Amino acid sequence: MSATTIRILEELMRSGGFRSGEELSSVLGSTRSAVWKHIRLLRQDGYDIEAVTGRGYRLTATPGYPDAIETGRFLQTSVLGQRIEHHRSVMSTNAQARKLAREGAPEGLVVTADAQTGGRGRMQRVWHSPPGVNLYFSIVLRPPVPPRVVPQIPLLAAAALHTALASVAGGVELRIKWPNDLLAGGRKLCGILCEMESEADMTHVVIVGIGVNVNLRALPPEIETVATSLLLETGREFSRPELLASILNAFEPLYRRWLEVQDLSPVFDYLEEYSWLRGKQVEVDQYGRRLKGVAAGISPTGELLLDMPDGSQTMVSSGETHLIPDNERT
Amino acid sequence: MSATTIRILEELMRSGGFRSGEELSSVLGSTRSAVWKHIRLLRQDGYDIEAVTGRGYRLTATPGYPDAIETGRFLQTSVLGQRIEHHRSVMSTNAQARKLAREGAPEGLVVTADAQTGGRGRMQRVWHSPPGVNLYFSIVLRPPVPPRVVPQIPLLAAAALHTALASVAGGVELRIKWPNDLLAGGRKLCGILCEMESEADMTHVVIVGIGVNVNLRALPPEIETVATSLLLETGREFSRPELLASILNAFEPLYRRWLEVQDLSPVFDYLEEYSWLRGKQVEVDQYGRRLKGVAAGISPTGELLLDMPDGSQTMVSSGETHLIPDNERT
Repeated sequence: MSATTIRILEELMRSGGFRSGEELSSVLGSTRSAVWKHIRLLRQDGYDIEAVTGRGYRLTATPGYPDAIETGRFLQTSVLGQRIEHHRSVMSTNAQARKLAREGAPEGLVVTADAQTGGRGRMQRVWHSPPGVNLYFSIVLRPPVPPRVVPQIPLLAAAALHTALASVAGGVELRIKWPNDLLAGGRKLCGILCEMESEADMTHVVIVGIGVNVNLRALPPEIETVATSLLLETGREFSRPELLASILNAFEPLYRRWLEVQDLSPVFDYLEEYSWLRGKQVEVDQYGRRLKGVAAGISPTGELLLDMPDGSQTMVSSGETHLIPDNERT
Repeated sequence: MSATTIRILEELMRSGGFRSGEELSSVLGSTRSAVWKHIRLLRQDGYDIEAVTGRGYRLTATPGYPDAIETGRFLQTSVLGQRIEHHRSVMSTNAQARKLAREGAPEGLVVTADAQTGGRGRMQRVWHSPPGVNLYFSIVLRPPVPPRVVPQIPLLAAAALHTALASVAGGVELRIKWPNDLLAGGRKLCGILCEMESEADMTHVVIVGIGVNVNLRALPPEIETVATSLLLETGREFSRPELLASILNAFEPLYRRWLEVQDLSPVFDYLEEYSWLRGKQVEVDQYGRRLKGVAAGISPTGELLLDMPDGSQTMVSSGETHLIPDNERT
C-alpha cells in the first residue's frame, strides 16, 4: 500500500463518517481522480468504502488486517509494534523478520502476515497458515543479554500471550505447555518459535515468532484432534489487530522487567499456575535421548523439572514433551 | 576456478614434473589449445607454470592459497575441511559461511579467503585482513546441542589453534586469552569469532571464524603494539594451507569428544595450563558493568572465575577482559 493510499485510509478512519472527494484531494494535494484511484485500490484490498454522490466517501468495514494502521489504534507500547510491516502473504514472518534484522531493523519491529506460504513451528514442522483468519507475527528483539538466557524468552512470551488471550477469551481454560505452546482444552491454540543470532557470548537478535489460531473454523484433518482456535473455543470472532495489540501490550512490560533480572521471576508464579504439564507424566525427547518422569515445575531459568522414577529430579533444558497416555504408563 | 582448470592443476601437482600438452588434453578430453587457455588462467591466479617446447608444462610454484587443492594435501580429517570454498577476496569469511549455511551447507564446510574487505572481530571491531599473508577462515558446524553450551566452542577452538600453532612454531610462547584470542608474547596472534543461529533450545548452525596473523611483516600503526604474526615471532614464513590443515586436524577430534560430553573436560587442563589471564588482575566489561578481580581459572563450562577483592568468587560468562596495569591496581 502506498503512503498516499494509507493517508486516504487514515483520513476515512479518523473521520468515521463521510469525507468529500474535494476534502480528501485537498488534504493530499492531489486531484479528485487520483483520490478515486486510491479508493479503488483500498476496495481491492478488502476495505468497504461507500461512495455517495454529493456526500463523498465513507469507510464501512475494514478487512481487519493486523497492519500498522489497524493495530496502532490499540497499542499502548512504546517500542514493540511501533513499526509494523504487514504482508498479505509471506513465506514466513520469522524468515522476513530475520531478513529485516540482518538489514539493521531495530528492536520492536513486528512483521505480520495475513497468510504464510511456508509457516513453520519448531523442528521445522508446518504451521497451518491460511489467509484471513489467524494471527502470524514476529517481533524483532535486540536484548543486551548473553545467549544463555535467551531460551527464557519463549516462556516470557507464553505468559504475555496467556494474559492477553485470557482477557479477551474469558472462560476458556488456557494452559502454557512448556516450552512454547498455549493450549485450550488440551489442544494447541498458539505456538511460539523463538530464533536467535548471536556471538558466543553476545546476542545480536532474537526473533519471537507467534502463531495464534484466531477465527479458524475448520481444521485440516491431520491436526483437527490436536489443534483448536479462539473461535472454535468461544463460538465468536475476534479482531486480529486488537488481539495483536493486546499481546504486544502485555509483552512489553514483562520483557522490560526480564531485561533487568534476566531470569523468569517476573512470570514464574504465573507460569507455574497455568502450567499444562505440572503433575503429569511426560516423556521428553531430547536430542534422541528419551526421558520419562513427572513434570514437577520449572526452574527459575526455565528448565523443566522432572521427578524421575528412581526418586531423583532432572532438569531438562530443551526438548519435545509428550504426555504419556494412561495405558502406556509404567 | 573452473572444474577443468582445477583438473589441470591437480594433474600438474600429482606429476611433480613435466606433463605434455597432449597428455593433459587426453586426460581432460579437450583440445591442446583449451589446455593452454587453462594454463594461462592458472598463471593469472599466481601459479608459476613452466612451458618447455617438446616437454610440456611443469608447476614450479603455487601462490599458497588456503584452497581445497593445496589444503587437501595436508588434511587428515573426515569432516572438517573436506569441502573448502576459497575466495581471493570476500567481505568476511563468517558472513559468507553464514550465507552458505542458510542455503544448507553441511557441517565441516570451510570458507577461506586470501583477503577480507570487511573482516571483523568481536564487538564489530575491524580485523586487519590484507591479501597474501594471513589465514582467514570460517568453519560451518551443526552440533546437535542446546545453544547454552555453544559458548564453549571458542575455547575448544582456541585449544585446537594452540596445539596446531605450537607444533609448527615451537619456541614461541603461545597463550590462550579467555574467551577467544591467542597471544604470542602478550600480543594478539589469532582471534576467534564464533557466531550461531538457533531456536531457543536447538542450535541450527555455528560459524567458527578464525583469523591468524601468519606471514604479516608490518602491522598498521593502530595495532602494532597489540598484535603480532608468526613471521614476526619466528622470523620465518609459514605455508597457509599446511597451517589451516593442522588447525582442522587438531580441531576435529576435540570437537568430536566435546559433542559427547558437552563440557570442556577434553581441553580443560590444556586451557588452564596455557591461560594468559590466570593469576593476573583483570577488569571485565560485561554489558556495561565493570568487574575487577584476579583471574582464578575457568569453570568446566567455560566461565571465567574471578577472585573478588572482598574474598568472594564470581563466574563471568561473557565480556571483554583487560589486564589492569600495575600502576592502576587497587
